[in-house]
Amino acid sequence: MTASNRITIYDVAERAAVSVATASKALNDTGRMAAETRERVKRIATDLGFRPNVLARNLSSRHSRSVGLLTDDTYGRFTLPVMAGVSAALIDHGVSVLLCALGDDPVMGRAYVETLLDKQVDGIIATGKRLDRPLAIDAAQLPLPTVYAFALGPPEALSFVPDERQGAALAVRHLIAQGRRRIAHITGPESFHVVGERAGAFRAMVGEAGLAANDALVLPGAWTESWGHEAVARLFNRAEAPDAIFCGNDQIARGVIDALRERGLGVPSDVSVIGFDNWEIVAEQARPPLTSIDMNLKELGRQAGAALLRLINGEAAERGVVKLPCSLVLRNS
Amino acid sequence: MTASNRITIYDVAERAAVSVATASKALNDTGRMAAETRERVKRIATDLGFRPNVLARNLSSRHSRSVGLLTDDTYGRFTLPVMAGVSAALIDHGVSVLLCALGDDPVMGRAYVETLLDKQVDGIIATGKRLDRPLAIDAAQLPLPTVYAFALGPPEALSFVPDERQGAALAVRHLIAQGRRRIAHITGPESFHVVGERAGAFRAMVGEAGLAANDALVLPGAWTESWGHEAVARLFNRAEAPDAIFCGNDQIARGVIDALRERGLGVPSDVSVIGFDNWEIVAEQARPPLTSIDMNLKELGRQAGAALLRLINGEAAERGVVKLPCSLVLRNS
Repeated sequence: MTASNRITIYDVAERAAVSVATASKALNDTGRMAAETRERVKRIATDLGFRPNVLARNLSSRHSRSVGLLTDDTYGRFTLPVMAGVSAALIDHGVSVLLCALGDDPVMGRAYVETLLDKQVDGIIATGKRLDRPLAIDAAQLPLPTVYAFALGPPEALSFVPDERQGAALAVRHLIAQGRRRIAHITGPESFHVVGERAGAFRAMVGEAGLAANDALVLPGAWTESWGHEAVARLFNRAEAPDAIFCGNDQIARGVIDALRERGLGVPSDVSVIGFDNWEIVAEQARPPLTSIDMNLKELGRQAGAALLRLINGEAAERGVVKLPCSLVLRNS
Repeated sequence: MTASNRITIYDVAERAAVSVATASKALNDTGRMAAETRERVKRIATDLGFRPNVLARNLSSRHSRSVGLLTDDTYGRFTLPVMAGVSAALIDHGVSVLLCALGDDPVMGRAYVETLLDKQVDGIIATGKRLDRPLAIDAAQLPLPTVYAFALGPPEALSFVPDERQGAALAVRHLIAQGRRRIAHITGPESFHVVGERAGAFRAMVGEAGLAANDALVLPGAWTESWGHEAVARLFNRAEAPDAIFCGNDQIARGVIDALRERGLGVPSDVSVIGFDNWEIVAEQARPPLTSIDMNLKELGRQAGAALLRLINGEAAERGVVKLPCSLVLRNS
């Protein structure tokens, strides 16, 4: 039961020992589930006196039950998975997420922030397209709880970021475990902080394994397929060609795989390839489908959302940078 | 000057005869522009007594100066360009756009809608991932101005959608203008409304030109690269191979281009290929870069935003379906 004693779908779900999503599907006659589950949820809802629209009316109390998500990522590639995670963390508390796309303009950014303050959101999550570039507005100065997700706030703030070094180490360890001994790293522009982090982890892991980690095997460039093609041409026109390539993102990896195939080299029989980002649209349609490192952005958003709830509820302030582990997604490359 | 007599960046921009974006960049010492433009904007701002944070404070009046954008597109591929257009239309009026990702769950959808009503947004724009599937909530029943953008509302609502038939006709006309005489159409699943629309336009245009339009040249399948590969295998193992292929989306086209190259066929020397969506990430990295049809989603969002403003301002209600033209983006395929 919630404090207001109104019956919500959360009460129904709890009583029925199912997830809120399942309870919702049962009551809406959508989704797949055992007929008896659906009937049981409906019976419990009736017993409790639940009416579906009560959920919506329940969204007012001491808090406005909404949070703002600020982003400068107009492409959505990183922001939408983070948003899905934030929503997943908040949905069980009846809290809605309002996304504001700030762009790169500080004046417009301030206007958006004022709108959110005006709407009395309970908190803010700041996210973005690049970990090493702050948003156009300084979210840490806002007079309400703020958490950073896939973005770095000031030291006194709480920030959730992927553990880039751990992710890169995971990739290199995987290649070494395949018996690979001459591993190259084709990556993005050196101006990106993550390029330095991933290359640093690459050098450390390769060195630890007693393998060559000379600079000729690290090729910074661009985040594009065409750079993947070009880098393969450079690497494989030399005497000692690599037998594995760790790519800084999936697009580079896709270009690398295509370039290797066109040179008559088998992936993974001659050269193992691994990407970074696990961007399904790229990784799944690569030939062969691409093994990649997933930054688990949805989980990152979920943790940021849960932390923001704790701040909103007045629990002890947390601070610092929380690095969340990446994981290896095995496909066929 | 605005009604409140507060000086806003819009006043500065107007007086300086530059865009709001330029005025903002000038005052924030960002962006590129002639030094004299920057100085002129700053001088005018000083003369008018403009202080940057006044913009934000100016965002309250009779209206809350915010609108909600509802979507079930969790990938963002269609929604974010629409959102950018809506923002562009509203930004000069100091109106913010709040995006709510509904998912497919009606209960959560209603919760989000109640949140927006609670926040007293001035209007709603409904958008989505598929033109032929309604959102999980019925936006037309909401007690405030509502416009549909890249989504179809009920007949009494105002909906903005791309002109699918015109876009497909544009593609086919382009291929015919290249001297192509045997044109195939490889497209997505028949359950999609747009597949029928585009195939209908394909048949009509090909027939008009006196070319073969038999069913063997229309291949519905999936929205994937791998379907592009498979369809090419089917088409080119026959006696009469096509000399042009109109693809239902860019991913199919990408698979088609790769499959043709691997068969030793030149694009466009042997076979012209055109895609649909103009999804830069796919079209620009294809080899050769892909000619495609652009649905102009940002312009569609802009028009929807402008129409919503008219509704909010109490101008005569518009209704019906507005089909906006697609355009041809020439690259090298």
